[in-house]
Amino acid sequence: MSDPQRVVVLAHEKFPDRAKTATGVLKYADYDVVAVLDRDNPGTSASDHRRDLPDVPIVSSMADAPDADALLVGIAPIGGGFDETWRDDVRTALERGCDIIAGLHYFLNDDEEFAALADEYGCDINDVRKPHDDIGVAQGKSADVDAEVVLTVGTDCSVGKMTATLELVEAAREQGIDASFIPTGQTGIMIAGWGNPVDRVVSDFTAGSVEEMILEKGDEYDVLFVEGQGSITHPAYSAVTCGILHGAMADKLILCHESSRDAIHGYEDFALPELSEYISLYENLAAPVHETEVVGGALNTSKVETDEEAAAAVEAFADELGAPAVDPVRFDTAAFIDEVF
Amino acid sequence: MSDPQRVVVLAHEKFPDRAKTATGVLKYADYDVVAVLDRDNPGTSASDHRRDLPDVPIVSSMADAPDADALLVGIAPIGGGFDETWRDDVRTALERGCDIIAGLHYFLNDDEEFAALADEYGCDINDVRKPHDDIGVAQGKSADVDAEVVLTVGTDCSVGKMTATLELVEAAREQGIDASFIPTGQTGIMIAGWGNPVDRVVSDFTAGSVEEMILEKGDEYDVLFVEGQGSITHPAYSAVTCGILHGAMADKLILCHESSRDAIHGYEDFALPELSEYISLYENLAAPVHETEVVGGALNTSKVETDEEAAAAVEAFADELGAPAVDPVRFDTAAFIDEVF
Repeated sequence: MSDPQRVVVLAHEKFPDRAKTATGVLKYADYDVVAVLDRDNPGTSASDHRRDLPDVPIVSSMADAPDADALLVGIAPIGGGFDETWRDDVRTALERGCDIIAGLHYFLNDDEEFAALADEYGCDINDVRKPHDDIGVAQGKSADVDAEVVLTVGTDCSVGKMTATLELVEAAREQGIDASFIPTGQTGIMIAGWGNPVDRVVSDFTAGSVEEMILEKGDEYDVLFVEGQGSITHPAYSAVTCGILHGAMADKLILCHESSRDAIHGYEDFALPELSEYISLYENLAAPVHETEVVGGALNTSKVETDEEAAAAVEAFADELGAPAVDPVRFDTAAFIDEVF
Repeated sequence: MSDPQRVVVLAHEKFPDRAKTATGVLKYADYDVVAVLDRDNPGTSASDHRRDLPDVPIVSSMADAPDADALLVGIAPIGGGFDETWRDDVRTALERGCDIIAGLHYFLNDDEEFAALADEYGCDINDVRKPHDDIGVAQGKSADVDAEVVLTVGTDCSVGKMTATLELVEAAREQGIDASFIPTGQTGIMIAGWGNPVDRVVSDFTAGSVEEMILEKGDEYDVLFVEGQGSITHPAYSAVTCGILHGAMADKLILCHESSRDAIHGYEDFALPELSEYISLYENLAAPVHETEVVGGALNTSKVETDEEAAAAVEAFADELGAPAVDPVRFDTAAFIDEVF
């Protein structure tokens, strides 16, 4: 991916609540977001819409955006296609010399007009959902790196593994740990500015696509926090979870859960097992490749109204887990970091 | 894939011992193999080279082959490329109106000369390693089919899961069971004449690519035998194994092992766990999606010299497993089928 400094984020008509990539980038990316494109809310600030977001101006179109070196598509329609109402913005960005960063199923590099404009104005189009061609099978070498490898694993999809991982990296850095984030999905890649879309690679290369990243960063940092995907009990996505577990050869696991979840999201016939069962499954499955342990938990309490109830939920979660736990979004994470790392 | 009746199998210079696809097709495919191409052994018969192979003539080139409706590439060079010394044979086949069936990394459909010839002579080129475009995520519905689903699972790659599965299908049919084979790899697909290359699909679709096949065949047969891949403890390929386990939602598992194996092939730092550990891993991992049980074992004794030693190895394997076992290639499998199904 390009290494942008000043980024405009496209989030028309979905900002902020249906714009997970846009809000993720606003909260966690190292580069500066200089504007959000949302034709529904021009003249407001991101922080007007959600208090955890920074004060970034919202404008109607790329024509109104300040100087930038990249336009990032921060939303996806159902199906992952390209919304033609975005074409003017992408065209304007390319004409202004901006790179494009997108994670759609539809690759913008395959769009004739955009490809021609990118060529004419010397811009890169980064389709982050497209794996690079050299990804291959794992060699079983991730455990050889100097860094301690920590992996977030989940009870289900969409329980907040990416967010928890990013929060843990930030909290670890604040505690003086030389930590880095290993992205495995498109939003994580856009935030980190690099990475393999593990859920999009050829199935035989799932573990290999994770190992490649661990080997690339493993001697540069003291701790790598790997973004987990899916769940080992998921009827559709467990393959990706298993490939990440064995490809990362993690030294420590953090179990992520959403406090109101009791069945697989979208597959409600499949009840979630007990937490103790998750711990056994993850630890026992990892062991033949690399011994590991669930050392803590991250509970997503976003559906719990009061902080008091949320704190009680975290405490109950920690008790059931038999390990320290935190909601790293809602509560201070310093004590958790000190205890676990 | 095409539905061929009379097939020529290309296996130049590697027949029979380095031609796993060619020998698999010779032994198990329902269509007739009318000739093998091997420029090293013209004038001989397949059965001259290995007594478990049928009496099929070996000829030097496609020009010498009898009437056929397909040419199947039954070998692969390291890397999966196309060997240019095969070009004349493929060209001749197309000019004679034969379809082409290949499982190379290099897609013959992308070869300009072959594509033009196929077009001119009205032939299909089947690149079986290329997944079709409609494969998607699993819905968790494989258990809804009428058929009992049996999956072969392994202690490692290359322990003979495909062969065991095919032998079990044959033995089951001989015992009067209306059984069918669900292929998941390229050789299996070539033998069956249909199927998804599960190890080549997008990782998110691993389970879905298996489910699609189960749903397609599940109401046509009483028992489906699904070809397993890899091993749940494999440092590189476990993702595919896990996706097949959850995608198939198997009612019964058959654990496959090769009698001399004690570490992962090609990854010798990784010792194989005890058989009891494999049973726990497979059963416990499957359970949250669909309860299942290891009901028997298939031991590959091809490296054991005498039948007496092999029988003893199978008996020891069964004891350790706590379930019936057989080497379905070496020994009669009828009693095993009666006991387990």
